[in-house]
Amino acid sequence: MKNIEGNVTAPKGFVASGVYCGLRKNAKPDLALIYSEKECVAAAVYTQNKVYGAPITVTKEHLKSGSLKAVICNSGNANTCAPGGIEAAKRTCAAVAKELNIDITDVAVASTGVIGQPLNVAAIENGVPELVKDLSREGGIKAAHAIMTTDLAEKEIAVEVEIDKKPVRLGAICKGSGMIKPNMATMLCFITTDAAITTDMLKKALKNCVDDTFNCVSVDGDTSTNDMVLIMANGMAGNKEIQNRSQAYKKFVEALKYICTYLAKCMAKDGEGATKLITCEVINAKSKKDADALAKSVIMSNLVKAAMFGKDANWGRVLCAMGYSGVDFDPNKVDVTLTSAYGSVKVCENGNGLAFDEALALKVLDGDEVTITADLKSGICEGLAWGCDLTYDYVKINASYRT
Amino acid sequence: MKNIEGNVTAPKGFVASGVYCGLRKNAKPDLALIYSEKECVAAAVYTQNKVYGAPITVTKEHLKSGSLKAVICNSGNANTCAPGGIEAAKRTCAAVAKELNIDITDVAVASTGVIGQPLNVAAIENGVPELVKDLSREGGIKAAHAIMTTDLAEKEIAVEVEIDKKPVRLGAICKGSGMIKPNMATMLCFITTDAAITTDMLKKALKNCVDDTFNCVSVDGDTSTNDMVLIMANGMAGNKEIQNRSQAYKKFVEALKYICTYLAKCMAKDGEGATKLITCEVINAKSKKDADALAKSVIMSNLVKAAMFGKDANWGRVLCAMGYSGVDFDPNKVDVTLTSAYGSVKVCENGNGLAFDEALALKVLDGDEVTITADLKSGICEGLAWGCDLTYDYVKINASYRT
Repeated sequence: MKNIEGNVTAPKGFVASGVYCGLRKNAKPDLALIYSEKECVAAAVYTQNKVYGAPITVTKEHLKSGSLKAVICNSGNANTCAPGGIEAAKRTCAAVAKELNIDITDVAVASTGVIGQPLNVAAIENGVPELVKDLSREGGIKAAHAIMTTDLAEKEIAVEVEIDKKPVRLGAICKGSGMIKPNMATMLCFITTDAAITTDMLKKALKNCVDDTFNCVSVDGDTSTNDMVLIMANGMAGNKEIQNRSQAYKKFVEALKYICTYLAKCMAKDGEGATKLITCEVINAKSKKDADALAKSVIMSNLVKAAMFGKDANWGRVLCAMGYSGVDFDPNKVDVTLTSAYGSVKVCENGNGLAFDEALALKVLDGDEVTITADLKSGICEGLAWGCDLTYDYVKINASYRT
Repeated sequence: MKNIEGNVTAPKGFVASGVYCGLRKNAKPDLALIYSEKECVAAAVYTQNKVYGAPITVTKEHLKSGSLKAVICNSGNANTCAPGGIEAAKRTCAAVAKELNIDITDVAVASTGVIGQPLNVAAIENGVPELVKDLSREGGIKAAHAIMTTDLAEKEIAVEVEIDKKPVRLGAICKGSGMIKPNMATMLCFITTDAAITTDMLKKALKNCVDDTFNCVSVDGDTSTNDMVLIMANGMAGNKEIQNRSQAYKKFVEALKYICTYLAKCMAKDGEGATKLITCEVINAKSKKDADALAKSVIMSNLVKAAMFGKDANWGRVLCAMGYSGVDFDPNKVDVTLTSAYGSVKVCENGNGLAFDEALALKVLDGDEVTITADLKSGICEGLAWGCDLTYDYVKINASYRT
């Protein structure tokens, strides 16, 4: 497997575009389209939130067939909790279908932005002809920009892996920042591949990859109203169709997981106002479930997040967050180590503070990627979660997002 | 029942004091003592955190007898996750016992401050003689100050209620701010009363009051390492001993709940960096449990908290937080109303946004006590939670608390 240039348009047969249609106040691109010249098998994972957007409903319906040719996504309005949402989502798909001369059920739709305000679907309908006209291999980056909201940077990746001696490509764009509960913002990820694979195996691959990657950032069940991870596979790479848990499947999953991991970490690092990526790894736990829950509890703690911003090795807050996670563990066995590119410092051993080198700790915490390792010394299982620090800018961004 | 001046020293037979013994860097009072001239029956509720301080262990042990004469509390160091914690807590109690010439098991101990650093127990031992010498009716406010950490204001209250035609008094001091998970800080509350009541009935009264008050701020199981609510009753009011669920008991519980409610709201309002108290009430729910869980989920949402700081009527975040609470409810039935002293504005009806008066909403959110009401229209049960907004100052305070 190797990294290659590009994103959703790196795999064969995919084109994309991004334009401004008038939904956003700041005249940034707000409408994105990804299109495959060949019919794709497709799979998606959606938010588990009880309150979810109309685009989720419509995309689920259109994906029942398991096939797709295009996905349209707007930013600036989530089309959620507003009257006429379903009709607006359907009209959006219809506009794309008409312009591309494809079936409406071959179009998926996603939205991100403010909740509770009616979607200006006329603006989208007006924008679709230009959006379709603009479709190109180069348009992938435009699409990446058009789905951004509070993201500071576009998020894209593409890789190539050899399957059946054919170069198979996967590419993706995504948006999302500050995703850890309760700091959620919508997370959207669109993945394309020219692999030949059955719908069933594609579904399995996606579900398993999401569980180990995006769900370490945006926790299942604690998700925003519009979260969606969608993958489309058009088979144009010419590999033998992946139909079961073969070596080819494993290679494909490895590449998909690599993509998802990279993007999940990008999202965590691009958390609203964040200055650094924080990884919490819990090792030597009794079960994977315990380890994951403990890591998430640490990453979710505002006190830990604020301490990381302040470069304060306040490991007591790490233990405290583990303590209220609901997981049964022995605090008197826990070691805590902080690591970054600048070094590593053990700050707690067997639940008690160590007289560590404060200058070294400050240096370690100056890194823009800090790992908090909690060693439970009680088993062999590991879990991890990604997040970011809590900063003045987080408050600034979220105090006035809507107005 | 009537409000009266004072705090823990308002009930008969109680004295208190607060001094600086050298634990805090800023030379603020850091050692508090409350003492009853007569033996008290006592009860306490502790943190549910798996990681808890040595003072919790020692106080639990000393309270096994159900009686107590004094409680000592230090700020500046939590005596948690540090070597020799139990011994330090015991030595603290012993110093008090010696100076007051009482049994060591008649002394409870509490600590709040940084986790993981050894407690300077010698400083406490040096401070205890002055602390005991300073005991007085007027010392209650000094004790209230000495237990503060990041609190901006001391928290005290006292009430008088007539039981068996005798004036019975209850008084309390507490500390804590920004208590909603994951914004925890230690919550400590010391309540005194001259009521005559059995240990069993006192335990019941306290447990029930805490569930409906402090646990609406500091959620059970999501508590800090050192949280403690302790009540001491010395019987000096001369009422007939409360032995069962009599009218007298109900009057006592009413007064106790009034005190706890007031202090819980004080803590929420004094959240670290907070500019306003936020109450979320969920009404017409199928069960009390559902209503409580939904209210807590809203109050815990950083996005809701930041929106309240920004006076932004972003009710979509309210629905979103309800949606990921894990509670089963129908989003399409939910009405959301915002209320403060400046008025009331309904912003969402049946899960959809209303075209509300933005100027009015801004005015309402300018209040320093804002209530978010979510009407589920699905039952008759109600629940509520208290919290505060998320501000620049929260980050500032917590980015460098330890150093």
